[in-house]
Amino acid sequence: MNAFNPDQFDQNALQQLQRQLRSEFETLKSAGLSLDLTRGKPSADQLSLSDSLDGILAGNYKSDSGTDTRNYGGLDGLPEAKALAAQALDVDVSDVLIGGNSSLTLMYQSILFAYMFGLNGEASAWKNETKAKFLCPVPGYDRHFSICEDFDIEMISVPMDENGPIMDEVEKLIANDTSIKGIWCVPRFSNPTGISYSDEVVDRIARLGNIASDNFRVFWDNAYAIHHINKDAAPIKCLLQAARDAGCEDSVLMFGSTSKVTFAGAGLAYMAASAKNLAAFKNHLGIASIGPDKVNQLRHVKFFGDFDGLLAHMDKHAALLKPRFDAVLSALNTHFGDSDALTWTTPEGGYFVSVDTQQGLASSVVAMAAELGVKLTPAGATFPYGNDPENRNIRLAPSFPTVDDITKAMEIFVLCVKLATVNAKLAD
Amino acid sequence: MNAFNPDQFDQNALQQLQRQLRSEFETLKSAGLSLDLTRGKPSADQLSLSDSLDGILAGNYKSDSGTDTRNYGGLDGLPEAKALAAQALDVDVSDVLIGGNSSLTLMYQSILFAYMFGLNGEASAWKNETKAKFLCPVPGYDRHFSICEDFDIEMISVPMDENGPIMDEVEKLIANDTSIKGIWCVPRFSNPTGISYSDEVVDRIARLGNIASDNFRVFWDNAYAIHHINKDAAPIKCLLQAARDAGCEDSVLMFGSTSKVTFAGAGLAYMAASAKNLAAFKNHLGIASIGPDKVNQLRHVKFFGDFDGLLAHMDKHAALLKPRFDAVLSALNTHFGDSDALTWTTPEGGYFVSVDTQQGLASSVVAMAAELGVKLTPAGATFPYGNDPENRNIRLAPSFPTVDDITKAMEIFVLCVKLATVNAKLAD
Repeated sequence: MNAFNPDQFDQNALQQLQRQLRSEFETLKSAGLSLDLTRGKPSADQLSLSDSLDGILAGNYKSDSGTDTRNYGGLDGLPEAKALAAQALDVDVSDVLIGGNSSLTLMYQSILFAYMFGLNGEASAWKNETKAKFLCPVPGYDRHFSICEDFDIEMISVPMDENGPIMDEVEKLIANDTSIKGIWCVPRFSNPTGISYSDEVVDRIARLGNIASDNFRVFWDNAYAIHHINKDAAPIKCLLQAARDAGCEDSVLMFGSTSKVTFAGAGLAYMAASAKNLAAFKNHLGIASIGPDKVNQLRHVKFFGDFDGLLAHMDKHAALLKPRFDAVLSALNTHFGDSDALTWTTPEGGYFVSVDTQQGLASSVVAMAAELGVKLTPAGATFPYGNDPENRNIRLAPSFPTVDDITKAMEIFVLCVKLATVNAKLAD
Repeated sequence: MNAFNPDQFDQNALQQLQRQLRSEFETLKSAGLSLDLTRGKPSADQLSLSDSLDGILAGNYKSDSGTDTRNYGGLDGLPEAKALAAQALDVDVSDVLIGGNSSLTLMYQSILFAYMFGLNGEASAWKNETKAKFLCPVPGYDRHFSICEDFDIEMISVPMDENGPIMDEVEKLIANDTSIKGIWCVPRFSNPTGISYSDEVVDRIARLGNIASDNFRVFWDNAYAIHHINKDAAPIKCLLQAARDAGCEDSVLMFGSTSKVTFAGAGLAYMAASAKNLAAFKNHLGIASIGPDKVNQLRHVKFFGDFDGLLAHMDKHAALLKPRFDAVLSALNTHFGDSDALTWTTPEGGYFVSVDTQQGLASSVVAMAAELGVKLTPAGATFPYGNDPENRNIRLAPSFPTVDDITKAMEIFVLCVKLATVNAKLAD
């Protein structure tokens, strides 16, 4: 099939195309497919890369640092595991805390402690504000937005381009409103656009602490820090170091996990922050927890050996992910490479391909695909309050299904985009 | 040495005894011991009982219910693990949620959600109260009190006897003060007294929901539910069932964990509650977490096989704990069996022996023991705000040290109690 350019069609040709697409639609409907491109979760093949985790201790539960990992203690993690996490986040070991199995939980706890108790004394608690607000670069991650909603924190969308959030806008908003207490960032292979923040953007985010209120924090969810598909993808600058250089190290909190490195839900979650932030965090964490699962931390230390081992492990993930992403991108290029019906970014890592339909069509595309048995992330999910004002963005998550299933699902997706576009054109 | 009865001594004999005890004190001081009776944590021998946990999956990460435990999902736990937890808590599987590795975290989260968001709609949030209050049966567990302090919840002490909290007092307080939102209970082999709640006390606690405000919750920390030392210790009544019978199932939350069953910190934590409470809890948990570590849940399921396997495992713990408790109790009986210098309870399970000195002496005993190299839980720690108004209670934790070390530590403890008692008598 050639590139899809309905702009070049006259009314008759458009109607003919609509009939043809509708007929394909009906044929596919009767096929009764059941495919799912919604969840950014690893495939069984990826998970199997880490199957030797269970049993790796061979009866020796003592860490090199002399800790009996089976017993209580060690609120901020095993030194050996912290060393690994520090390298993954490109920070010093002393900057690191290892939490439980979920970086989302560390983010939730950070917001909880900042909101209820303050990370810099009681007066700094966000609950003292009439209305605490967060900046949300869009499209973004729905689970970030849910945390804000839970705490009744008002979300303000800010646009992004291929270098990250539009910093002129971010800086202007923060300078003019002291009730803005945070910004969500997924700086590398961003969820969902796949873009990575440029050095300039990182530097400007690092300096936000100098124009924001004292209790402002950047929430730097580096979920895909080491999750390349293209091994040559450029690294990103370390935010904590840049913030230190700018004299405002207390304004940033960094997060990461091995959920998409080893096992999703049975990995390690970690954060990096200034000594002051870590101390405030631990003050409350020590009341909420008896400490993290150190046995699992030791398993990870033994499994990777060192950071090079971890990186080599990520290459294996890349080898499994690449054909899946290629299946998505090849379908998009074939059908819309030369078309204005759909735009997208080509990610060099991460878990998603983010596409934009023409204005107002995303929800119909998702609904049509559902009719044909292909589950897509709900339109709007990548925006605060589930509301994409232009109704354009759709997040495709190709990591979990097989290449065959992705190929089938993309055929349907392509058809739905075409049909929605033609329908809209004829309704004009 | 005979029983210690300074009441029967005249002034001269008392002074002679004081000189003798002081001389023993100085001798022991020069011995430079370093012993620790502070922490209720399992010994290495106990932990080794579960060493086969790592590797028990033999490469099969799929549960009988068909879940790939390595991936995301399953917010409230694996069905097979819930079945085990349900038996440990004596409730139905549908009443159970399995959380992370710490029942303390589940309790903290319950208080957080009840405080911030309400477990029964926004209007039920405790933050709406001028001052939320909790009842704290004393002596109790300092980590419970710390959670209340973190949320600025006022704590009101209520006395206990060998059957549990004095219910006349509990009921009177609750009937007269609608700002009382909870009560902390460790119902079996209580921390620190070791007593277990009688059926009558359980029934009266189950009915508190009928006299308390709608958003009142019993926090039933059944930490030692299956942790007997004497296998014939009587079971306790199930609170959730009793509350159901009384028509107020929403007023109780039950908690437990395998921290002192398998590995402390690498075990499973669980709670049991009404469907309404579980739904409200999961509403917020689902925002704070990507789900618990299901791989570790599967390990526990395979390790125990079934509930009988779990109980048989607990017998092995009892065999290791009993000589340690005997070492403590035998020293107490030998020296104070016939004396009013010290009273204590003889626990049939749990992790502690709780002793009461004569009025006002606990802190000096703890300080003297420290001088001789024996670390004891700080006096007052078992009371809200660290304040034992009579300065009498000391918690002894004999699980972790060897029997030899306990015996040595108890010699010193006995000496310090005697010396403090004689000193006080002579100062009268």
